[in-house]
Amino acid sequence: MRKGFPEVIFCQGKTPQQVKEIALHMHKNGSNVLGTRSSKHHFEAVKEAIEEADYYEEARIIFIRNTVVNKAKGIIGVVAAGTSDLNVAEEAAVTAELLGNTVKRFYDVGVAGVHRLIDKLDEIRQCSVLIAIAGMEGALPTVLGGLVSSPIIAVPTSVGYGANFHGLSALLAMLNSCACGVSVVNIDNGFGAAYTASLINRIGES
Amino acid sequence: MRKGFPEVIFCQGKTPQQVKEIALHMHKNGSNVLGTRSSKHHFEAVKEAIEEADYYEEARIIFIRNTVVNKAKGIIGVVAAGTSDLNVAEEAAVTAELLGNTVKRFYDVGVAGVHRLIDKLDEIRQCSVLIAIAGMEGALPTVLGGLVSSPIIAVPTSVGYGANFHGLSALLAMLNSCACGVSVVNIDNGFGAAYTASLINRIGES
Amino acid sequence: MRKGFPEVIFCQGKTPQQVKEIALHMHKNGSNVLGTRSSKHHFEAVKEAIEEADYYEEARIIFIRNTVVNKAKGIIGVVAAGTSDLNVAEEAAVTAELLGNTVKRFYDVGVAGVHRLIDKLDEIRQCSVLIAIAGMEGALPTVLGGLVSSPIIAVPTSVGYGANFHGLSALLAMLNSCACGVSVVNIDNGFGAAYTASLINRIGES
Amino acid sequence: MRKGFPEVIFCQGKTPQQVKEIALHMHKNGSNVLGTRSSKHHFEAVKEAIEEADYYEEARIIFIRNTVVNKAKGIIGVVAAGTSDLNVAEEAAVTAELLGNTVKRFYDVGVAGVHRLIDKLDEIRQCSVLIAIAGMEGALPTVLGGLVSSPIIAVPTSVGYGANFHGLSALLAMLNSCACGVSVVNIDNGFGAAYTASLINRIGES
Amino acid sequence: MRKGFPEVIFCQGKTPQQVKEIALHMHKNGSNVLGTRSSKHHFEAVKEAIEEADYYEEARIIFIRNTVVNKAKGIIGVVAAGTSDLNVAEEAAVTAELLGNTVKRFYDVGVAGVHRLIDKLDEIRQCSVLIAIAGMEGALPTVLGGLVSSPIIAVPTSVGYGANFHGLSALLAMLNSCACGVSVVNIDNGFGAAYTASLINRIGES
Amino acid sequence: MRKGFPEVIFCQGKTPQQVKEIALHMHKNGSNVLGTRSSKHHFEAVKEAIEEADYYEEARIIFIRNTVVNKAKGIIGVVAAGTSDLNVAEEAAVTAELLGNTVKRFYDVGVAGVHRLIDKLDEIRQCSVLIAIAGMEGALPTVLGGLVSSPIIAVPTSVGYGANFHGLSALLAMLNSCACGVSVVNIDNGFGAAYTASLINRIGES
Amino acid sequence: MRKGFPEVIFCQGKTPQQVKEIALHMHKNGSNVLGTRSSKHHFEAVKEAIEEADYYEEARIIFIRNTVVNKAKGIIGVVAAGTSDLNVAEEAAVTAELLGNTVKRFYDVGVAGVHRLIDKLDEIRQCSVLIAIAGMEGALPTVLGGLVSSPIIAVPTSVGYGANFHGLSALLAMLNSCACGVSVVNIDNGFGAAYTASLINRIGES
Amino acid sequence: MRKGFPEVIFCQGKTPQQVKEIALHMHKNGSNVLGTRSSKHHFEAVKEAIEEADYYEEARIIFIRNTVVNKAKGIIGVVAAGTSDLNVAEEAAVTAELLGNTVKRFYDVGVAGVHRLIDKLDEIRQCSVLIAIAGMEGALPTVLGGLVSSPIIAVPTSVGYGANFHGLSALLAMLNSCACGVSVVNIDNGFGAAYTASLINRIGES
Ligand SMILES: Nc1ncnc2c1ncn2[C@@H]1O[C@H](COP(=O)(O)O)[C@@H](O)[C@H]1O
Ligand SMILES: Nc1ncnc2c1ncn2[C@@H]1O[C@H](COP(=O)(O)O)[C@@H](O)[C@H]1O
Ligand SMILES: Nc1ncnc2c1ncn2[C@@H]1O[C@H](COP(=O)(O)O)[C@@H](O)[C@H]1O
Ligand SMILES: Nc1ncnc2c1ncn2[C@@H]1O[C@H](COP(=O)(O)O)[C@@H](O)[C@H]1O
Ligand SMILES: [Mg+2]
Ligand SMILES: [Mg+2]
Ligand SMILES: [Mg+2]
Ligand SMILES: [Mg+2]
Ligand SMILES: [Mg+2]
Ligand SMILES: [Mg+2]
Ligand SMILES: [Mg+2]
Ligand SMILES: [Mg+2]
Repeated sequence: MRKGFPEVIFCQGKTPQQVKEIALHMHKNGSNVLGTRSSKHHFEAVKEAIEEADYYEEARIIFIRNTVVNKAKGIIGVVAAGTSDLNVAEEAAVTAELLGNTVKRFYDVGVAGVHRLIDKLDEIRQCSVLIAIAGMEGALPTVLGGLVSSPIIAVPTSVGYGANFHGLSALLAMLNSCACGVSVVNIDNGFGAAYTASLINRIGES
Repeated sequence: MRKGFPEVIFCQGKTPQQVKEIALHMHKNGSNVLGTRSSKHHFEAVKEAIEEADYYEEARIIFIRNTVVNKAKGIIGVVAAGTSDLNVAEEAAVTAELLGNTVKRFYDVGVAGVHRLIDKLDEIRQCSVLIAIAGMEGALPTVLGGLVSSPIIAVPTSVGYGANFHGLSALLAMLNSCACGVSVVNIDNGFGAAYTASLINRIGES
Repeated sequence: MRKGFPEVIFCQGKTPQQVKEIALHMHKNGSNVLGTRSSKHHFEAVKEAIEEADYYEEARIIFIRNTVVNKAKGIIGVVAAGTSDLNVAEEAAVTAELLGNTVKRFYDVGVAGVHRLIDKLDEIRQCSVLIAIAGMEGALPTVLGGLVSSPIIAVPTSVGYGANFHGLSALLAMLNSCACGVSVVNIDNGFGAAYTASLINRIGES
Repeated sequence: MRKGFPEVIFCQGKTPQQVKEIALHMHKNGSNVLGTRSSKHHFEAVKEAIEEADYYEEARIIFIRNTVVNKAKGIIGVVAAGTSDLNVAEEAAVTAELLGNTVKRFYDVGVAGVHRLIDKLDEIRQCSVLIAIAGMEGALPTVLGGLVSSPIIAVPTSVGYGANFHGLSALLAMLNSCACGVSVVNIDNGFGAAYTASLINRIGES
Repeated sequence: MRKGFPEVIFCQGKTPQQVKEIALHMHKNGSNVLGTRSSKHHFEAVKEAIEEADYYEEARIIFIRNTVVNKAKGIIGVVAAGTSDLNVAEEAAVTAELLGNTVKRFYDVGVAGVHRLIDKLDEIRQCSVLIAIAGMEGALPTVLGGLVSSPIIAVPTSVGYGANFHGLSALLAMLNSCACGVSVVNIDNGFGAAYTASLINRIGES
Repeated sequence: MRKGFPEVIFCQGKTPQQVKEIALHMHKNGSNVLGTRSSKHHFEAVKEAIEEADYYEEARIIFIRNTVVNKAKGIIGVVAAGTSDLNVAEEAAVTAELLGNTVKRFYDVGVAGVHRLIDKLDEIRQCSVLIAIAGMEGALPTVLGGLVSSPIIAVPTSVGYGANFHGLSALLAMLNSCACGVSVVNIDNGFGAAYTASLINRIGES
Repeated sequence: MRKGFPEVIFCQGKTPQQVKEIALHMHKNGSNVLGTRSSKHHFEAVKEAIEEADYYEEARIIFIRNTVVNKAKGIIGVVAAGTSDLNVAEEAAVTAELLGNTVKRFYDVGVAGVHRLIDKLDEIRQCSVLIAIAGMEGALPTVLGGLVSSPIIAVPTSVGYGANFHGLSALLAMLNSCACGVSVVNIDNGFGAAYTASLINRIGES
Repeated sequence: MRKGFPEVIFCQGKTPQQVKEIALHMHKNGSNVLGTRSSKHHFEAVKEAIEEADYYEEARIIFIRNTVVNKAKGIIGVVAAGTSDLNVAEEAAVTAELLGNTVKRFYDVGVAGVHRLIDKLDEIRQCSVLIAIAGMEGALPTVLGGLVSSPIIAVPTSVGYGANFHGLSALLAMLNSCACGVSVVNIDNGFGAAYTASLINRIGES
């Protein structure tokens, strides 16, 4: 593990009691602790035991800071379409921040209105790494990939219905992107995208 | 059937002999005859029996003209990315022409280079109906749908490999398009898209 | 966007609070606002803030009228089998009406009793565009396609169980229709079908 | 096994030599022998060893008659759309005949032209059992089921392309038929349909 | 429809109010009415309006008798493994009875204890038609098919977990049965199996 | 690796040249060498270089013996239906023999004729471990599992067509077996089943 | 069934009342009774009727002991990654114990930290049979298989989200394991793995 | 596009003639040209027209150098298991080299022999970015991810059979990796992985 990078708990499917115990154990080792997919109930159980725990509601993240991560130089851009993908986008953005990165959010740039994306290009191009989040037809990373030359981590979301098949449509679209420089993480995996983006953003650090 | 619209033979999976016999039968009724997915072997068998048969190689179409279809007013635009989708695009474009439409081809406009698409917008917007053809991540109809206000018939193609699953990625992407005004036909079904586009293009004719 | 066509909110998966805020924002711009897949809770939140909001219960649609859409000339026919597909059929029919179309509903015409469909043919043939809605084996657009010469937008529904796989059976059947002139939208996407049908119904308008 | 019903060899995937040996073994027991999915090569190997072997080319069936099956009273109707499903239809029809049934073929009755089916209804209704064969959208058994009151064995075929997924579309459509009295066999399984239809056609025999 | 056969309502997904209204309408026509997949709530709504309505709890069936169906001669056997498939088995058995058939239930005969099946063979062989119901690996119709010479309607159930995929394992197993005389209906479709079995059981009646 | 167990080459997809080189390298180390899924071309290339190489044609196995494996005490039974599964069955049987086991073959015992299986039970019950091989509906391991108390390694085969989906039907059936004591290997993986069976057969050896 | 091995009830999907009745019936026969996938409600219903019933909460197992199973010689090792797979791991471990085996649990050894696994190797290698439990990417049995020479029963779990598809990712990974000696049971089937492991662990007993 | 990065032709599915023409066109623009998935026939056609074209046979890559790419500082490590994944591994390695990177190959490190991987760790840890290539159970990126702290681009390959489903097993395993820092490209997409790795390897360059 990277120095200062937190230990991580995937809270979904665990009881608040289980999460609390795991968190306490990690906390006592002096690690930073990051809980993803946590509900308020998870947070409350942790907060009882560890006063300094914080909760990021939209991102569904619990964080306990014990050491400081030094700041990375580059910027991570989180690019997403809108309201529906917000939870996943925030999971990515908050994770990236907690791993010591400067993050810029670009949240109103769905491909069915490509000019909104183009209008932000100058700012987007200043980022070292991009995280592109999209549900439904999952076209955003492809369009973005044609406009920038930084690496893109694509996150398909399960937003949609019917032939979306819980995110399969966006996942397959992203894996088949005709743009270069796009790699993909699991459906709704904002955390994983941010972790990878952080590793990339620190390349060249010694 | 629309007046003057041809009778249609789906040649794939039929022997040249079978195609010839069906074509002869239709020809004798005085219908126009359109054979799709035909190989040169199909064409040669038909040509032997019916002198006036024509062959469109890239479109893989046999056509026998017996009556004239009157010209529709609007333009059908066929929008596609490039070399790989050519057969399907030509199947659509040639079918639309044979059904009496003026057709414009826009063939170098993949979404990983969105400016090429934007550069053609003025011309594209003059079309009454659009056929958008794409393989792989199938994003073209969505991006297009955000830029125009005419109806779009989307054709996923089986171009790709791996998680493309023979066109499934493009098909699902198109069905889940976040743009309005997009409807979808079967994978590689250039013929069906053109037929539907022709019906649309003649709405208001009496 | 077409003049007078509304801005659209997909309410499902959003909180009533989120929907209210988006609606208010659009309303203040003077747009018509159309909320699809809305529950009563969504509507109540919107109604509190915007007095003139209307709710179409079976269609699950919220509508706020700010400008008048001029009436299209042709008729859109909505063809469906019965009770189970009612919500999707009404989503299509109400959307089409709100987009300025005259709509005729043909709701008791499942293919397992093909004579009921044939009895309505004269009326159905007067429509410029048809929306055909069916779950289970999804055969309605195919049978219809053989009887009429207007374009058909097919909507598979998730009605069924077992090997229906949440609408997959109807979706695949419609994509493979052996009738000409059929194109398909996402499972349960009555809104999308109506939007496309409206664009088609206005072709030739200037 | 029913008295006089043949022993059956599924030839596909076996060498001509293997088929010959199995056939000889059965032949020596005095059984009738029926080989399905046989190529000409299979037949030639069998013919060399067993003079009285017959070959039904379109049905891809080898038959060796050793005992007579008594004739069933009712008629089995084989209903199909056209050229493409011919092999499967003939496999069903020839099998049913070899199992001692009177068979009527109705081969030009696809659902995209429902009047052709309706024109044949009087004759079709005289059958005790029906076998309905269709590829692509697989709607035939459903439409038929609404028009007759005899049991229907539905056979999906692998005819089609793209989202047909080798017969999956027709299979799912048939399993989800909204008509009563329809049961289904494997994709392309004309033999199995005919065998079942034969058992049904002999109910009441002692 | 067969004389005396009921009109059918598929209650699942309908409100009690909707079911009541449909039932009343059919009842007034003098038809027998059969409601499948009905909950107690459906029944109570119907009972309020139609005093003579009956409820079969395990079968989840509502029945309203208005005319008498004459009794069929043959016996329908319903063969199943045990407790878990009980609802589907009863849906089949009760439907078959209400359609005028004598029904025998064989409910403790799973293939993982093949001797229990063999012990019942004499009785099972007296049936004209068999309905074989199984979840999980779906092997019962195949084993049964090797032991009897009557036609078998196979019903896969959604009983199982994991790689069962909601009945897919049993469905595929039954469609691929290596025994002759087996045809298949939708997952959990006890009603459809019984309806088909009834049609078969009446073959030869005039 | 177990003492005396061979090093293994999966030949399919490798060139004869590649296989020869790998085999030579292993051979020089003094290991026994086992090549699976090998064609005659693979064998010929190997034979050229290594005189003592043997070829088992039906099993598609190349073997080069350099050391002797001591004989295991128990018997491994290979149970299969017939001609179509022969290659996989022989791959299992020959592999098990080459790993030092006594093997008994039971090859004519498909579940559609369950008495043939029951007739062999005494012999089958003398085996310590069983390998059960079946395609299509994959019911054999389940029926077998109810009749014996030794562990069963189930091998689904890709034998079948249509809804078999290249072995998926048998695979899912085996994973969902309602019999106890059954575990499963990959489709057509006779080798893997035999390797596992060999490890089991040697439990208790020191 | 093995002497002393229990009769088994799969409780999920059964009412507490049904489970109680089946348990009572088995109990009266003097068998040991094992209920899997049981909730507390199931247990309470059974406990009311049978005083000596025990409940293993994490394993979700009810057990009623009526006879003693003699102890097997070898050890069964249950190897798993951590908190999320705990229920399945305990289902396996408790079942194996109740079937008369000595069980060792290795629960903190996920492959993303392969040294934890390597640290336990000496102990793991003392086991006769291993059960390897993993969700998500399902790599544990493969890594383990390369390090030990005992047979491994692999249990995929449904732990994960998105492209996990309810355990499909782990299931496919395990079936495709490139390590020898691995066979697989159904997703989440801890019971089945333990039953098979018990049979294996008793090979050589007379 | 990055300065000096080539224009790319996906040759598969194109005729040699088409590839030659596209290559010539790019060549005349002074770009470097990279053709992937090219056969010898493609190369020969290109070579005829462009003398300086080179061919990398195992990588299936055509390259035409017109400008020099400056060398990146970091090393890209290509980690793979063995012979079967060689083509994909070489496609990745050669692409990375042609894009100006220093590449180290680690080709004998499958996870079923985890010590071979561990033995190379010191060298692997000197790489800035890793490309991990695996078929079958696709576990390599996960195990690797636990041992290093550089970002990993995972490439599933279609190597395998049966439940591998043409690379699906490895793809799903990689998307569900329980290790951090792993992102995924399409099945067999060595080129895409190398392109992304190159972008990452140049982060911090100005
Ligand atoms: N390329 C195509 N894709 C889909 N459907 C087609 C195609 N070409 C023809 N058809 C349809 O197939 C019918 C002819 O099929 P057939 O009778 O088998 O030749 C026509 O009426 C069309 O509806
Ligand atoms: N019922 C529906 N089905 C599919 N797409 C819809 C539906 N309702 C709205 N949309 C689309 O979703 C967009 C709004 O999504 P959102 O910004 O998440 O509210 C609109 O522009 C429409 O294109
Ligand atoms: N359990 C069932 N499974 C499948 N189809 C059914 C079932 N019950 C009724 N049906 C069919 O559904 C039709 C009634 O559907 P509905 O009009 O939606 O009530 C009937 O005509 C039957 O063909
Ligand atoms: N957790 C489990 N997973 C799979 N099969 C089980 C499980 N528990 C019990 N079984 C099997 O299910 C049978 C009992 O099923 P049932 O008769 O429905 O209670 C037993 O004989 C076992 O073979
Ligand atoms: Mg780019
Ligand atoms: Mg638009
Ligand atoms: Mg039509
Ligand atoms: Mg009927
Ligand atoms: Mg039978
Ligand atoms: Mg057993
Ligand atoms: Mg091992
Ligand atoms: Mg790492």
